[in-house]
This record gives sequence, C-alpha cells and structure tokens, in this order.
Amino acid sequence: MTQWPRYTLASGPVDVAPETMRDMQRPVVYHYDPAFLDVFAQTSSLLQQVYQTKYDVVIMQAEAILGLEAAAASLFQPRDKVLNLVSGVFGKGYEGWIRAYGAEPVELAVPYNEAIDPDDVRRVLHSTPGIRYLSVVHSETPSGTVNPVKEIGRIAREFGVITIVDTVSGLGGEEVIPEEWGIDVAVAGPQKCLGGPPGLSLMSISPEAWEAMESRKQPLQGSFLSILDWKSTWLEQGRFPYTPTVSEMYALQSVLRQTLAEGVDHVAARHQAAAHATRRGVEALGLELWPAREEIAAPCCTAVAIPDGLDDDTIISTLRNRYGVMISPGYGDLKGKVFRLGHMASAAHPTVVALQLAMLERTLDDVGYPVTPGTGVGAALAALKGWDDASGAVPVHSL
Amino acid sequence: MTQWPRYTLASGPVDVAPETMRDMQRPVVYHYDPAFLDVFAQTSSLLQQVYQTKYDVVIMQAEAILGLEAAAASLFQPRDKVLNLVSGVFGKGYEGWIRAYGAEPVELAVPYNEAIDPDDVRRVLHSTPGIRYLSVVHSETPSGTVNPVKEIGRIAREFGVITIVDTVSGLGGEEVIPEEWGIDVAVAGPQKCLGGPPGLSLMSISPEAWEAMESRKQPLQGSFLSILDWKSTWLEQGRFPYTPTVSEMYALQSVLRQTLAEGVDHVAARHQAAAHATRRGVEALGLELWPAREEIAAPCCTAVAIPDGLDDDTIISTLRNRYGVMISPGYGDLKGKVFRLGHMASAAHPTVVALQLAMLERTLDDVGYPVTPGTGVGAALAALKGWDDASGAVPVHSL
Amino acid sequence: MTQWPRYTLASGPVDVAPETMRDMQRPVVYHYDPAFLDVFAQTSSLLQQVYQTKYDVVIMQAEAILGLEAAAASLFQPRDKVLNLVSGVFGKGYEGWIRAYGAEPVELAVPYNEAIDPDDVRRVLHSTPGIRYLSVVHSETPSGTVNPVKEIGRIAREFGVITIVDTVSGLGGEEVIPEEWGIDVAVAGPQKCLGGPPGLSLMSISPEAWEAMESRKQPLQGSFLSILDWKSTWLEQGRFPYTPTVSEMYALQSVLRQTLAEGVDHVAARHQAAAHATRRGVEALGLELWPAREEIAAPCCTAVAIPDGLDDDTIISTLRNRYGVMISPGYGDLKGKVFRLGHMASAAHPTVVALQLAMLERTLDDVGYPVTPGTGVGAALAALKGWDDASGAVPVHSL
Amino acid sequence: MTQWPRYTLASGPVDVAPETMRDMQRPVVYHYDPAFLDVFAQTSSLLQQVYQTKYDVVIMQAEAILGLEAAAASLFQPRDKVLNLVSGVFGKGYEGWIRAYGAEPVELAVPYNEAIDPDDVRRVLHSTPGIRYLSVVHSETPSGTVNPVKEIGRIAREFGVITIVDTVSGLGGEEVIPEEWGIDVAVAGPQKCLGGPPGLSLMSISPEAWEAMESRKQPLQGSFLSILDWKSTWLEQGRFPYTPTVSEMYALQSVLRQTLAEGVDHVAARHQAAAHATRRGVEALGLELWPAREEIAAPCCTAVAIPDGLDDDTIISTLRNRYGVMISPGYGDLKGKVFRLGHMASAAHPTVVALQLAMLERTLDDVGYPVTPGTGVGAALAALKGWDDASGAVPVHSL
Repeated sequence: MTQWPRYTLASGPVDVAPETMRDMQRPVVYHYDPAFLDVFAQTSSLLQQVYQTKYDVVIMQAEAILGLEAAAASLFQPRDKVLNLVSGVFGKGYEGWIRAYGAEPVELAVPYNEAIDPDDVRRVLHSTPGIRYLSVVHSETPSGTVNPVKEIGRIAREFGVITIVDTVSGLGGEEVIPEEWGIDVAVAGPQKCLGGPPGLSLMSISPEAWEAMESRKQPLQGSFLSILDWKSTWLEQGRFPYTPTVSEMYALQSVLRQTLAEGVDHVAARHQAAAHATRRGVEALGLELWPAREEIAAPCCTAVAIPDGLDDDTIISTLRNRYGVMISPGYGDLKGKVFRLGHMASAAHPTVVALQLAMLERTLDDVGYPVTPGTGVGAALAALKGWDDASGAVPVHSL
Repeated sequence: MTQWPRYTLASGPVDVAPETMRDMQRPVVYHYDPAFLDVFAQTSSLLQQVYQTKYDVVIMQAEAILGLEAAAASLFQPRDKVLNLVSGVFGKGYEGWIRAYGAEPVELAVPYNEAIDPDDVRRVLHSTPGIRYLSVVHSETPSGTVNPVKEIGRIAREFGVITIVDTVSGLGGEEVIPEEWGIDVAVAGPQKCLGGPPGLSLMSISPEAWEAMESRKQPLQGSFLSILDWKSTWLEQGRFPYTPTVSEMYALQSVLRQTLAEGVDHVAARHQAAAHATRRGVEALGLELWPAREEIAAPCCTAVAIPDGLDDDTIISTLRNRYGVMISPGYGDLKGKVFRLGHMASAAHPTVVALQLAMLERTLDDVGYPVTPGTGVGAALAALKGWDDASGAVPVHSL
Repeated sequence: MTQWPRYTLASGPVDVAPETMRDMQRPVVYHYDPAFLDVFAQTSSLLQQVYQTKYDVVIMQAEAILGLEAAAASLFQPRDKVLNLVSGVFGKGYEGWIRAYGAEPVELAVPYNEAIDPDDVRRVLHSTPGIRYLSVVHSETPSGTVNPVKEIGRIAREFGVITIVDTVSGLGGEEVIPEEWGIDVAVAGPQKCLGGPPGLSLMSISPEAWEAMESRKQPLQGSFLSILDWKSTWLEQGRFPYTPTVSEMYALQSVLRQTLAEGVDHVAARHQAAAHATRRGVEALGLELWPAREEIAAPCCTAVAIPDGLDDDTIISTLRNRYGVMISPGYGDLKGKVFRLGHMASAAHPTVVALQLAMLERTLDDVGYPVTPGTGVGAALAALKGWDDASGAVPVHSL
Repeated sequence: MTQWPRYTLASGPVDVAPETMRDMQRPVVYHYDPAFLDVFAQTSSLLQQVYQTKYDVVIMQAEAILGLEAAAASLFQPRDKVLNLVSGVFGKGYEGWIRAYGAEPVELAVPYNEAIDPDDVRRVLHSTPGIRYLSVVHSETPSGTVNPVKEIGRIAREFGVITIVDTVSGLGGEEVIPEEWGIDVAVAGPQKCLGGPPGLSLMSISPEAWEAMESRKQPLQGSFLSILDWKSTWLEQGRFPYTPTVSEMYALQSVLRQTLAEGVDHVAARHQAAAHATRRGVEALGLELWPAREEIAAPCCTAVAIPDGLDDDTIISTLRNRYGVMISPGYGDLKGKVFRLGHMASAAHPTVVALQLAMLERTLDDVGYPVTPGTGVGAALAALKGWDDASGAVPVHSL
C-alpha cells in the first residue's frame, strides 16, 4: 500500500497547518446561509488586507490557473498586443492563452535561470507601438526565481499598459501591493506561501482592468472564465454566479487570518530567511543553485541543478521512500535539469530547513554523491543565527 | 454575531457527514505524490462504479457548472443545432451557453411545474432535420421535478444525437446509468444526493462524445473549459492539466465509497422514500406541491407552493433564526413562488424528514398559517412505515 | 458490520457538537508546555464561571465517578456519620463508599420515582446527633428526577453539615451555585448537559471541605483519589500531580466557553423547555411518565414507564437498528421498568425533541403499541410555541 | 498570547499523528451503543496483540499512574513484603504506594544513571525470606534509562514472586512480552512510544495476579482503584464499571492498529535506531549522556547532562520560544541535572532526530555554548545510514 509522506516540501501544494485543517472542517452549509455570506465577505476583506489594497478583490472558485486564463479571456480582444515576459516555463506558457483569445504576443525572453531586466521592458515598450497589456510571472516556481515586478509594473503604468501578474507562488513570499507595484490583475494561490489547500484564485483587480473588461465589444459574461460575472453578482449584489467551494473558503479565511496575525511583512521575511539559509546549505554541499544570481532566487523554493551522474528520479524517490520527504522535480523544459526544495508556509522555518537539508544529505550519501553529513545543515544553521519566533526578529536577508 | 445553522436542508450544498469531514482532513499533499495519484485513480474508479459505466469518467476541478459549460465549449461548433429541453430554470439557462459557443438552440419547453414528454422529443427530432446535440436537465432542482432522461436518451440515440445531461442533483437520487440511458456527457455534483462538499464536476463521457470533441475543426485544448485536456493528460498519461483540488478529492472519494457501501440502488430508494414521505407531510398540512404530478416529483427536494398571504422570506428566516433549520427559497423565475425542502444525502432519512416537517409546522404556526401541530409529521411517519436502516428494506415508492 | 448511530439521545454520553470536536483536535502537547498551562488555567477559570462560584475548582482527570469516590476517600474518617439521601440508584450507590471509607451511613430514602423532601432532611438532622456529612444526588439520571438540593443544602449549612452533591447530570440543566445552595463538594460531568465527551470530574470545593480534608488524622495525599493533591500541586504551585488528559481538557474548555457564550441561565432554560415539551409528547402518546410529579422531573432526560406488553430491549433496539436513534434503558433497579429519552446539550432543542418523539412513534407502531403518528410530536410542538434561538426568548417552564 | 509549539519532543505526551487525531474524532456515543462496545472489544484485542500475550488485558480509564496505584491497591495486604527496585525517580516513588497500602518495602537501589543488575535481584530474593511482590520500572523516563526487566522477571518467577512492571514509556520502544518476561502486572501508557494522547492505563494481568487480588482477605471492589472491578464487569459480563473515556478509546484503537500494521518489532527497532543516532549526535556536540552506559540508554528519550555554565531553563525556553521545539527538563531529583530529548512515536524517525539536534545546536550557539553547527546532526546522519521507511530495513542497534 502506498504510504503517506511525512513532509510535503514540494513546490505546492505544501503541508497545511493543523489549525487550517480544523477551520476547514466547519460545517458545509448552503451558500446563501447567513453564516456563509459572512465568511465570504470576511474572507474577501481579509484578502484585501493581505494584498494591502483598496482595489476590488475577486476569489474565483478554482485553482489559480483559472484566474490566469480568466484574465486573458476577460481582457483580450482580437489584435490586442500583449507584451509577454518570459523567464521560465510559466511565463512561456501564457503565450498560449494570448493566442487562444485572439491577441498578439510580443515576447521579451531571458534564459530560464535569469530574470527580466526592467530596462529591457522599458526599451520594448518604447520601441513597440500599440502594446496594450503586459503579462509577467512574479515567482517562476519551476526556476525558483523571481522577476522584479515592482519595477516592471511601474514602468508599464508610465506607458498606460495594463498588467497581468502571476503571483501564484509570490504572494506571501514577498509583500505584493497592487497599487504600489502597478499591478492591474494579480492572481495568487492559497496553496503556496500562504499554506492553504489548493482550489482558489486570489485576485486583485484595478479600476483600469474593470474598465478594459467592460469596454470590450462583447464583454465576457455568463462563463466560468468571466471575471466580470463576479462584479455583477458578488461585488454589486452579494449573490454568487454559482455555488462556491464552501470548505476551501473556510481554509482560505483561516490562512489569511493567520497571515495577518503574523504580519504580511513578517511572513515575507520568514520566507526569505528560510530560502537564504537553504541556499547556503545547498552550496555547502557542493551543489549548484539553478538561479544565475542570489538576488533573483525565489523565497518559495530553491531550484538546485542536478549534479552530473545523478538523476532527479533517484534523488526524489529515495527521499520520499526512505525518509518520507516529498520534494518536486523539474517541470516542463526544466525536467531533468533541477530538483526543487520547498520552503513555503510552515516550512519557511529553521526546523524544516534543517530537516530538509539533513534528509537531502542522507539521501545524497545513499545514492553515491560524496557528502560530509552535517555540512549543509551546518551552513544553514549558521545563516539562521538570530532567528526568534517569539520576537518576530527574523533575520531578513533582502532579495 | 451570525449563528451557524443546526441543519442545512437546502437545495445544496447540504449537511456533510462527519465521516466525510474526517476523510477530507487527510493531509494536503503534492499532487504528484504517489499517495495522491492513488487517491485520484481510486476515486475515478469509484465514480465509474457509481455511474455503473465503462465509459471514461472525468472529474473536472470546479463546481458542476464548470462541467456543464465545458460540455458546450468542448463540443459545439458554429451552426450545430442543439435541441434544448426546457422544464425549468436550469434547462432554460443552458441556452446561454449554446448561443455563446456559436451553436443554434432548438427549444422544446413545458411549464416549470411539468416534465418533458419523451414523445415530444421524438416528434421534434423527426420534424427538425440536422439536430446534432440534445441538452436536458435530469433533476430540475429549482422546480423539484425530474425529467424522464432514460426514455429521452434512448430516443436521442436512435437519431444519432449526442446528449448532454445535467444530473447534478440527479445522481444518487436515482440510479443514472449512461450506457443504458443513452447519455453521452453526464455531469453530476458531489454536493447533492451524494452528500459531499461542492467543488467538483463528476462527468461520464461516451466514446461518441470524445469523437465529437476531437473531430472539431479546432478541438478545445489548453483551457480550463477543455474536457479533452483531461483525456490527453490524466486518462492517457496519468498527469494533471493543473493542480487538482486535493481536499475535495478526498471528500469525493469518501462519499463515493459510502455510496457504494450502501448500494447505489439503496441510496436511490432511500431518497425516493424520504421524498415521498415529505410530500405526504406537505399535503397533510394543506400546502400545495409545486410539481404538477406525483410521478415527476424529484427525489432530491420538494418544492412547495407558497400559500396565499405568506412570503418565502418570512417562512425561511423564521425557520432559520428561531429553529436553526436552513431550507431554500425559489430560484430564478420561481423566486417568490416556492420554497424547497431538501432531503438529500443524510437528510434522506426518517429522522430528518420528521424534524424538517415538525419545524415547518412550528414555523407556519408562528407566522399565522393555520396548522394542527403533528399533522404533517404524522402523515410522513405513516408513509415511512416499513423503513429499516439495518436490513435495507426501505419502502421504495417508485417514481 | 456494526453501524454507527445517527443520533445519541441517551442518558450520557450524548452527541458532541462539531465545534467541540474541532477544539478537541488541537495538538496534543507536553503538559508543561506554556500553551497547555494556559489552557488548563483558562479552563479552571471558565469552570468557576459556570459554577458562578468563588470557591476553588478542581478538575480531576477521570470520569465523574472518580470525583464522587474521591470526596468520600478524602473526607471520611472512621465513625463519621454521613446522612445519605436516597431517591434513586445513584443515591443508594453512594452508601458503598461511605462504608468502604469507614464512615457510618444514616439513610433517608424515598421511592425511586420521588424526590427528597427538605423538611425530612431537617427532621433527621434534628433527631440524629453527630451527623457530619450529607450526600445527595442532584439529578438522579436513572429515575429522570431531581432533588431540591438548593433547599437541602441550606438546611445542611444551618446544622454545620458538610455536603457532597452529585450534580453530574445536573449542572447545565439547572444553574448550580455552590455558595447559594450550600454545596461543599460539587461533582459534575462534561458529558451530560454541557455536551462534552466523558472523562473528567468537574468539582467545586468550599473552604470548609478543604478544612475537613486537611484536618483528618491522616489526610489523603499521594493518591489518584486525593483531592488534596490538586490543592498542593495545581492550586498552590501550578504543577500537576500527574499527566492530565490533554485532549479532554481542550474539549472541556470548548464546552464551557460555549455554555458561557449562550449564558448559563439560557442553557438551563433551554433544557427545561425541551424536557417539558418531551413530557407533553410522551403523555399525548398515552405513555406514563416515571417521575411521580411534574415538579421533580429532570431537565436532562425523561424516564418513561415501559407500557404493559412491551419490553425495553424491543423498543430500544428497534429505534437503534431501524432509525439510528440510541436512547437508554433503565439502570440498576430500574432496569426493565423504564426507558429514557435524552434531551441534553444540543438535543435540548425543538429539532431533536421532535425527531426523537417522531421516531419513538414510528417505533411504537412498529412494535404493536397503538399510536396515532404525529400525536406526540404535535403535543411537543404546541408546548414549544414561543421558542426562538436568536432572541434567547426560550419559553421556560420552571421546575 | 502564548504560541503553540511546532514540535513536541518532550518526555510525553508527544506529537500525535494526524491519522490518530482523525480517528479520535469519531462521534462520541453512548457507552452501551453497539458501535462503542465493538470498539472497546476490538481495542482490548489489539492491546493483547501489541503485548503479544494471552493474558487478560485491562484498560483502566485514566492516565497510567492510575494503573500503577491500582496494582498496589488491588494486590498488597498488610505485612506483604515488596522488593522495590530503584534506579530512578519513578522507581523510588513506588515506595509511597507500597507503604500507603500497608505493605513493607525492601529496597534495592542503584544510582539514578545506572540500571538494576539481575544478579543483585537474585541475591536479595535469596537472602530475604518472604518477599511476595517485586516492583520495577522498565523505562525510567526521568533518567533516560532502562532496566533489564526480561531477566529480572524470569528470576522473580523462579522465586514465585509476583511482578509489577511500570512500562509506561517502555512498551513500543521495546517488545514487552508478559509471559516471556515474567510480568504479572504490566502498565503502559498510550502517550509515549505508541504516540497516542494521554488518559489511559494499558494493563496486562497474569492469572497469578488475578489470584492474588481475589484471595485477599478483603478483595478491592467497587473502587476506581480496583482492577478486579474490570474482571467482574467487562471481562466477565461485557459491562463497564462506569462510563469509559470514549474518545481516548478511539485514539488508542487507532495507535494500536498503526503499531500492529507497522509491526511491534519494527516500531521497537525504529525507536532504538533513533535513540542511537540521537546519542551519537549529542556526543559529537561534546555533551555528556546521563546514562552511565550505552547498553542501558532508553529508546524513548535521551537524557543529557547539563553542561557547566548552562541551566536547563535557558536551554529549554530558548528552544521553545525561538524555534518552537518543546523538550523536557529533568524531573524530581534530576531537575537541574539533565534535559531530555524525546524520540518517541512519530519522532522516532531520521527527520525529527535531525531537526531536534539541529535546533539544539542553534540553541546552544545562541546561549553561548561552543558548537560547530552541523556536527551533531552529521554524527546522527552517519549513524542513520541504512534507514529505509519503505522496506522496514531500519538499522537496529541493539541495546
């Protein structure tokens, strides 16, 4: 019989805290029950606070890929030019929806271990007339890298370009503030740095984005992909376009509350410190980090280049089968090139950073990679000096 | 502060059994963890058994409205003629997607307290050349009625017409067998007669339906609305098109197992007996059933005409606020005309039938409708004579 | 395979609310973890508030029978005279401990369908010199009766007699206030009117009781039966005499909070209204109530005399096996004479009162007792007129 | 507000697995409900299998201290001579009950970092006529040591002496087999190596022990401390002497099932390997193990001598407050001399061994003890070479 893992330190979904599990167990009720209407309204308000925004928030009722496609489906019209920034698998993937919904992609790409340079964005916007939208992935989970969305968004705003930002694994690992960052449509997921179960799209929508959706020749309405449906029902009338996923909303309310209780800034700092320590551990083991530079390494997970002579299946299945620790392989074009150590949500903590590196060391030794046990953990522990759960004085190593 | 209801006897979602809640709490794991792959495969197989089918089943990862729209989006091409059978709000609503995806609706309609006559279907298919698809709602939850899909589906099959059946609140209340009933695309929901939380589309797809999707000029792929995506990933490669809703899959696995342990036929008989008893109770109170005829009354919920001098808000809020029982008002065109007593899942049982009628009696008295307390419950109890949880000898009153 | 019951309407343990179950699931921690020390201290304080007392409270770590025996073991010395009031099985049973711990019982007894008359207590105390202790059962669960402990306790106080009160199923069904009622040692249980799981003794101890324990020639210390151990460890030093039952403390904290949130007086009124309505239903069915008089009928459960020609096993097993409702048979000397309908905790509500009577009616008809279905429920519903969850305006029918 | 710990690696209670928590949430039912009778019978049978015994098992309904005192209360008569073996705080403590119940202790003691030598037991039994009972602690949790009970029990049997064995933290860490080990009364706890919540006494009783209880001049009956009560009710009649702790029984059933599914021998080997690795880590950090010899170190927890210049409060509170890891201080006479690292139940695994040592390293550095981060973890990882969850090929380092 298949055994359950002891620790899910993958690229998402990740381990969900017992407190969240308990809150998710509140009774499944009719979606128009006053109790559920309260939960939905409160959760929306909590999401606004986590986004630190006055923009409308929309919680679409399926995994974040829905929100990302919905943005394309709801915004784009034939012949719209969309500047698509590509620094990884997910960025490249967005091109499919740009084309599917009739718009024209303009690509700005860098190697998948690199990040977009804001100056390049400015250059392309200058040189290419008629760009209406810009799409960018904040946290490229497959590469373990982040793009400087804050700078990119501000530049887009200068040019009057509407931005669509995939921050599925970004929100929580950094503070993401739509107004300040020039983000018109943000899409985050509960199952990454927030530590919830998957199944919802957490969106922030600027007035400019609403205006763009509504001014289309044929605004998208009456579809599961319609963002506008949520404006005309929930936001304007307190009704739902269809039955929401009751239990997932309970879980979301729980993780948002926990995030705000800890402090969005503290959650971000905790992720960055855990990521920093993990990278120091990886390096100490003589392994190579996939991201080209320290500054672009992601807070959510650390992509490690697979050393010569080893393969990802062996490493991952040994870790999983012998020690009960589940991490992620490479994805898409990066399959076979990297494996990924997750440090999201409750795993963004010294306990789990140490545990993960220790089991990686045990595994590397098992599979014949030369390693001195304790080396990686030791380097990580040194980097974690100064951590303090109680005071919140987490040592922050800025990106 | 808003209080939680004691009993959710609405039109769905409905009360979820503690056993299901516990199973839903299994750890949230990475979707490619061997444990989750096992759960997903098992759950698919359980769904096939509940549908008693050899057809492929697909579990789309959002509430059943997704499956219904996906059928339209995945099948229809411009100029396809679709016979849309309308006996209620949901049937009428399907026309929107027929048009949105470029097809031409042909409507066959009856009043919303009636059901479609299969002979009329045959007549229309005869007289209208070129009909390629037929869409029908099995259980019209807003009306508390059912359509004779078994007969309709067989007629459609004679004409080579591909059928799309909304059995969201039908599966469980009746045995729904795609091959025998001539159903090409069936869409059910976990949150009705199966007693699970909402959030998934439970679909059965015939080879003819796959063929129709694949032979489109531009098959729909790479979209949240694509059913084909599940064929090319999960069914053919054991991969997912995106992250599934882990916890909802656990809950689904649980309710499917429970359904099979009890027996699909027994679950159906239980719903029918509970519905029958509820109707007897309603009549004994001098209230009018909304469905025109006993034979078309739904196993899932009983729609009751609102008596003169009363309004739904008063009845429903009194029941909810004073006694903690949540039922459903009318929906869409039936708003203000009916209220609905639910008897799905664990509520399809003498205990809850009696409880609901008793609180309805208490409430009617409170709001000034003349009622002799105990009358409705008494009639229902008389109708329930012969019930036996243990032996399974539930008195079945066939539709 | 044995099926689980749908409703546990027994004489205790009874159905535990989902909210309590969730709170009970908080992580099992080390008993000296700061988090658990907080929980224990808070729970003690909540218990004091539920008892509305300034006396010390002690939470002994096993089912309430421990607290009852511990009172005997901790207080009595050879040749102490103990006035033991006997109006039922539990009252009679206390004599065993009086003798076991060397004291001399003086019995004042009434038939088991009656209650103790306070005037008789005064008379015995007058006529019998040297009585040091008085033991009495507040709520005789086996008989479904209550004794007027408030009056009895005040009389005892006049005579300087120390009282031991078994209010295991009394607290919650009535307000029990040790100072006002003259109770020196009170012992309640979480698994009755408070709606928690069994496993703890909820005690209130007067200064006089402490003094009596401490002034014994050999005070009982270092034993699981020692109440004093809790004074010298928890109350005086914040330590535990041994490892407490962590999860049961979580559940207790939860039900005490819920009780206080609703209001101790409201909880009591709710039980009394539910009990009153149940009695009206039982009478309407032509059945005989076991308690001799309305005024002494218990808020926690209704004892019904088994009608001629029927037996308890048949009634109870039919209810359980056919309808999933578990009630209690008679206990001890009352075995075969009564069955008992529970209306404690969440069952002290119109929904469950109606459900229970309805299933009893269905069952009586099944087993051949002449009954007009709906009669009992109807009478109960009439008695419940005026109930309102929201306003708290529960119609209280005083004892 | 007090924060919850992340990991409870104390000397018990310890972290309880999510699976157990879920099983504990089964509905609280009436103790005479057929479902609960099933659970109780099954759990008793599971306990017999874990003890690998044909002896009767008794599950007393409070924390294991109850079972230990009950043995004294149920067996001893005035003038019985009891050989009490003392190698730690708990062993010494048993003398209190020997005296309290009127028997005469004969002490055989060693320093608290040592274990009893079986030859010494034989010598005392030879030289001291009339010894009827022998009491010994198998696993001295405060010292982190074990006594060779297997050898001791066999010697006692030669002399016809009845043995009482405190294996509260022993069962699970080793295979404890009453018949083979010559144990007449064994008392274990669910909250140690079995990984359940606290609140029950898990006992095995030999025919000789029953005979001794029953042949007393006044057998102890009708008391919470009576073991015989369980014979005359549960074992002989399927009744309970009082209401059992329903939810704790669910949890116990769950952990016993898990233990048997893994294999009692495998569970023991896992604890021993984890303990061995922890000791290697502690030594590598330059710390001193408290037990005098490797062979007597306990599988359940590792007692570490507090290094000069440090104190336990500082170490423990830093670990708890900064890193969320709760360990135990010294207890009784060992307070201030040791701190204890727990590796019981789910913590008897490389992941937690590494995590605990890593956080200890981080903490020691924080409080000024010279440590090279990674040293301890590295030594433990080296010792864990060969571990494999899947195959069960845990490297066993025998005691």
